[in-house]
Amino acid sequence: MSMEDANTTSVRDAGMGKIDTYPIYIEPFHVDFTGRVFMGVLGNHLLNAAGNHSQRRGWGIGALNESRHTWVLSRLSIEMTEMPRNYQHCRVRTWVESVMRTFTNRNFAIEDAEGRPMGYARSVWAMIDMETRRPCDLLSLYDGDILNYVVSEAENVCPIAGHGRFRFRNAEAVRTIRTYYSDVDINGHINSIKYMEHILDLFPREQMERGIRRFEIAYKAESYMGDTLTFYVQPADDRETDVEVRKNVTDDASGDVVCQARVVFN
Amino acid sequence: MSMEDANTTSVRDAGMGKIDTYPIYIEPFHVDFTGRVFMGVLGNHLLNAAGNHSQRRGWGIGALNESRHTWVLSRLSIEMTEMPRNYQHCRVRTWVESVMRTFTNRNFAIEDAEGRPMGYARSVWAMIDMETRRPCDLLSLYDGDILNYVVSEAENVCPIAGHGRFRFRNAEAVRTIRTYYSDVDINGHINSIKYMEHILDLFPREQMERGIRRFEIAYKAESYMGDTLTFYVQPADDRETDVEVRKNVTDDASGDVVCQARVVFN
Repeated sequence: MSMEDANTTSVRDAGMGKIDTYPIYIEPFHVDFTGRVFMGVLGNHLLNAAGNHSQRRGWGIGALNESRHTWVLSRLSIEMTEMPRNYQHCRVRTWVESVMRTFTNRNFAIEDAEGRPMGYARSVWAMIDMETRRPCDLLSLYDGDILNYVVSEAENVCPIAGHGRFRFRNAEAVRTIRTYYSDVDINGHINSIKYMEHILDLFPREQMERGIRRFEIAYKAESYMGDTLTFYVQPADDRETDVEVRKNVTDDASGDVVCQARVVFN
Repeated sequence: MSMEDANTTSVRDAGMGKIDTYPIYIEPFHVDFTGRVFMGVLGNHLLNAAGNHSQRRGWGIGALNESRHTWVLSRLSIEMTEMPRNYQHCRVRTWVESVMRTFTNRNFAIEDAEGRPMGYARSVWAMIDMETRRPCDLLSLYDGDILNYVVSEAENVCPIAGHGRFRFRNAEAVRTIRTYYSDVDINGHINSIKYMEHILDLFPREQMERGIRRFEIAYKAESYMGDTLTFYVQPADDRETDVEVRKNVTDDASGDVVCQARVVFN
């Protein structure tokens, strides 16, 4: 066992449960013009809960970086029957539903202060090698320790549909933006939450007034400060719209797909 | 005494001190590519501290709205010797420095977890009538109760310069953006923090790498979802740049000034 293994292993606590609950509070600048929390802010709370949950079990980014691994968010699907409101105290429960060789499924429940469900979320995370940027075998890291934290669907239900599939056929480019300083995270990438914000900024006020029932996003490639993002919109019907985001589209090149999203309104 | 007065007065606590301290924690998605907290996020923490401090003393927006009054932020100047970093636990102290007839000066100290100063901030708030949008006499509200919370400069020092003056002579329009859903707060106005973000997005990566020593902003008029914002930049020297933001500028009209800011880099 190397020193690094010793460091990271020491964080683990065999007596720790599998599910964590984190309080969240909806701040006044974190709600939209209807008084409901921004979907991006809610997403940020979920990612913080995920980060804390894995860190407490020795699987946080800090410990992983010592062995040159890191988590990459691949999918996030949030479905809400009720959006938290201004000044509301809520909580997020999170747990690992399953672990495959190169990715894990992590679920979330969003509840009000009394534990009444407001919505759920599903996410998919890959573990990559920081240098090669290639997926790693999760089951071989720390002797398969991550399996100790799996909560099966039978034990704890996440009653929302799995991640959908995207099929873009006749999407229309509706906006191109440049990315700036505030779009970028500590790794120099456009941050996962900012894509959510830019995507929801495509919709008119009347549509946003209805509120969002479900938001899905699939992250495909990184983009960087200064990249342009072009948003292609493909409405399925009055309630549902798919959006594809491509970077650095030019007259001659169709660019790379950065992410794809589905927005379902109430 | 009306029912409304009774409601709002009941919140007050004569035994409450004048200075509050609030813990803040720097989340991973709230830091820039250098690992320092975004100035807008720090500003949001200060505004939350201000809101909580006044609410605990019966001067919060909730209580005020019952008597059709509300607070409007007029100036905010933040000066940091050290910017909080990723995962850092810090705290914000806030107090009222002085009260004039139609506005108050509120100060802030930003400290690390051990109470070592990292920076300070000054702000100016006006109290307005929600219907007429005109300033109100703060000293006549609740029988001058607000004077009970004043902490003089002699009692608690805020060792940074006061708010500066702006003089735009040869500012150059460098960017025009449209405002969207995520720019707007619960009142339908572009939110105070979003202006800070859009202003800092004007600067190139190399300049942002140096970090910001001081950020000042003066709010002049509201803008609304769908308004365009044009940014006029006037560098004073290598370290300091003034920015004026005007709304709905056209070929024929110079638009209204929405806010003015000064950014001083390290």
